[in-house]
Amino acid sequence: MSQLTGKRVAFVATDGFEDSELTSPWRAVTDAGAEAVMVAPKSGSITGKNGHVQAVDAVSADVDAGAFHALVLPGGVVNADHLRMDAPAVAFARSFFAEGKPVGVICHGAWTLVEAEVLEGRTLTSYPSLRTDLRNAGALWVDEEVVVDEGLVSSRTPDDLPAFNAKVVEEIAEGRHAEQTV
Amino acid sequence: MSQLTGKRVAFVATDGFEDSELTSPWRAVTDAGAEAVMVAPKSGSITGKNGHVQAVDAVSADVDAGAFHALVLPGGVVNADHLRMDAPAVAFARSFFAEGKPVGVICHGAWTLVEAEVLEGRTLTSYPSLRTDLRNAGALWVDEEVVVDEGLVSSRTPDDLPAFNAKVVEEIAEGRHAEQTV
Repeated sequence: MSQLTGKRVAFVATDGFEDSELTSPWRAVTDAGAEAVMVAPKSGSITGKNGHVQAVDAVSADVDAGAFHALVLPGGVVNADHLRMDAPAVAFARSFFAEGKPVGVICHGAWTLVEAEVLEGRTLTSYPSLRTDLRNAGALWVDEEVVVDEGLVSSRTPDDLPAFNAKVVEEIAEGRHAEQTV
Repeated sequence: MSQLTGKRVAFVATDGFEDSELTSPWRAVTDAGAEAVMVAPKSGSITGKNGHVQAVDAVSADVDAGAFHALVLPGGVVNADHLRMDAPAVAFARSFFAEGKPVGVICHGAWTLVEAEVLEGRTLTSYPSLRTDLRNAGALWVDEEVVVDEGLVSSRTPDDLPAFNAKVVEEIAEGRHAEQTV
């Protein structure tokens, strides 16, 4: 039996995502035995900034974090700028914190966590342009390849994906984190 | 003599700006008699998201706000996301506040003002995705076509450009605002 067998992982994004930041963690968690589910503000498909087309499995307004074990938020500036304006996606992301479930976020993805108001006192990294926004949201921002803070896994750019994927799989395998909260 | 004769207005942006948010205010201030100067992090030219190529007149590391009467920050998510990481552009923007000079900002342009730490207690609008970032930076965010707060003129999207341009010209004509400060 694989490390993540029986786990369901939600990936949330919209058009303009950084292609590899969706496809690479997706492959990592499914290779480890998890089921990956694409959640987006709209049905049909979404397209990455470099052209990857991803089928949407569920619309953000219809999903419940209770049906998932973990969340991954890919980056891409246009994706993240739009996703943070989708209230159901923001509420969905917030629920993972309320339920103590692992969350992986990379690059510009953390803007959705600013909107969800879950970063007060948390330590994370991101694409460097978000640094001040994350600090102003109450976070401790650090410049590292991958940061793990009680179930919250974060990285900066596609270059960090090998380290990011390894920690995302590890945190999902561990399950709930009591300190991961709102 | 035109309303802005003898005034020099700096436009600061980089690749990926929202074309009309540069070209339309540029035309408004030059039609009113001002000299417009394109400032960017790099020499040569910059290209808008819809293809407008704008020659760069001065590099951000080489300019001094003392040589200008006003500043305009166009939007475009990619432009604004990159411009906020250019320390000379951020310091240049901050100087207009320190010197009480008019500043026009539209759409995503306000991220540079978050980085410049000049928004505490100021009232402004922006593209809606920046709302929480601006509030977390200490601003009062409102949803209006154009907002004027003591020399700081702000608007949301290209649809607001007629109102934005009129107020930018008016504020530049008025000159220094004692309440426009850091």
